[in-house]
Amino acid sequence: MTRHQLVEEIKKKKSYLCVGLDTDITKIPKHLLVEEDPVFAFNKAIIDATKDLCIAYKINTAFYEANGVKGWASMEKTVRYIGNEHFKIADAKRGDIGNTSNQYAKAFFETMPFDAITVAPYMGEDSVSPFLQHKGKWAIVLGLTSNKGADDFELLHTDGEYFYEKVMETVSGWGTTENLMFVVGATQTVSLDNVRKQSPDHFFLVPGVGAQGGSLEEVSKKAMTKDCGIIVNSSRSIIYASADEDFAEKARQEALSIQCEMKNYLP
Amino acid sequence: MTRHQLVEEIKKKKSYLCVGLDTDITKIPKHLLVEEDPVFAFNKAIIDATKDLCIAYKINTAFYEANGVKGWASMEKTVRYIGNEHFKIADAKRGDIGNTSNQYAKAFFETMPFDAITVAPYMGEDSVSPFLQHKGKWAIVLGLTSNKGADDFELLHTDGEYFYEKVMETVSGWGTTENLMFVVGATQTVSLDNVRKQSPDHFFLVPGVGAQGGSLEEVSKKAMTKDCGIIVNSSRSIIYASADEDFAEKARQEALSIQCEMKNYLP
Repeated sequence: MTRHQLVEEIKKKKSYLCVGLDTDITKIPKHLLVEEDPVFAFNKAIIDATKDLCIAYKINTAFYEANGVKGWASMEKTVRYIGNEHFKIADAKRGDIGNTSNQYAKAFFETMPFDAITVAPYMGEDSVSPFLQHKGKWAIVLGLTSNKGADDFELLHTDGEYFYEKVMETVSGWGTTENLMFVVGATQTVSLDNVRKQSPDHFFLVPGVGAQGGSLEEVSKKAMTKDCGIIVNSSRSIIYASADEDFAEKARQEALSIQCEMKNYLP
Repeated sequence: MTRHQLVEEIKKKKSYLCVGLDTDITKIPKHLLVEEDPVFAFNKAIIDATKDLCIAYKINTAFYEANGVKGWASMEKTVRYIGNEHFKIADAKRGDIGNTSNQYAKAFFETMPFDAITVAPYMGEDSVSPFLQHKGKWAIVLGLTSNKGADDFELLHTDGEYFYEKVMETVSGWGTTENLMFVVGATQTVSLDNVRKQSPDHFFLVPGVGAQGGSLEEVSKKAMTKDCGIIVNSSRSIIYASADEDFAEKARQEALSIQCEMKNYLP
């Protein structure tokens, strides 16, 4: 999916919501456990209930890998079920030497039809650039994350700036605003408007609105650009809105409430 | 596998060789493509031919993920086939917020019987510590890698030292020498003896002897400790020693030649 297509979806749906499918088989409603593939059955119901309200789905690979081969099959079925009208993110945090990153790019962009993959930048350019060689596909590189551990390395200083700033500056040189985004979370230490100032044109994937506690209003006011420029993810607060048979309906209500709020912030 | 058990295997086999199973279906001998699971058939033959010469196998997850569900099945079969006398490393470079890293730990330590997983440190303590909570299991955290991209971030300066040094110091505080190792490669900029001086007791996983061009003698002289303290990996130079029907025999010759050299360097 190109940036233009993504922005058109955002305008059409008046939404920049990404629903995070962090589907944990121990947390889904019990009545689904009789299904042949309970995780896929859950995801299918969530997708059917939310697809007109969100522009992206984010599959957190860890939750699928925890179920082994069956989990990987659930992931493949899910990404194919989503179809081509949503931006499909593999939240996989991959990154290795070029030869290996090439194989990850093949896994997520060719074997599976994801539009984007999250990438960890530690190993530098040859670990990131293989993800930038696929037409219409995106690398979403870790910039500033909102977890406690962000203090350990991302917020160290190097050459008079934060380490994450150096990372975002350097990585920006490897791609364009048409194939590269950043994961940027709201933290106590750094205001999102500072990150936006430094990186005015890249899309940001903003995690953690909802269960992780971020404020949608604050994120939107501080990081939105004139073509939106943000994809805001919510996982647990939507998909686990109810643990009963009404889980899909409750997920829709939660997604609808976020989308209604988003309408107010869009340019 | 505990450190004591690992060191006993090293002494018994007079080897600290890890065979890297970066098995690429496009590179294995053509006669195997008629097998139901060609990748597993290849790995099985390599394991049978090398198991008395090496103390570890390293499965590079990217090469399996590139084949989708079938690839994940090949990986599971391979790690189970290796058995309990070798140290089984998932070279997966994972790392995410705690909730997610927990799921990765489940995938590689519970659903599959790996002994260790490679971990990317960018997101800090809560992204690494879930891998340190499993008895007898190990996190092998990226320290200094030997790829070109190491210059981009690992060799930046922070607080008067290299960034990778800060990472290794900080991460050392999260685990012990019984559950934490580091990936340390030989580079042009930093001599391995300096890394060893800074981190005298941790095991290092040293990639890149062989096809990536490192010298076994130099690595061994500079990084070995009194209980060995290094696991040296070779992937392509062993597993692709021949592209014909004699591939397993040629892999054995290559592994034997490395193991014979290793005998001379062991304490």
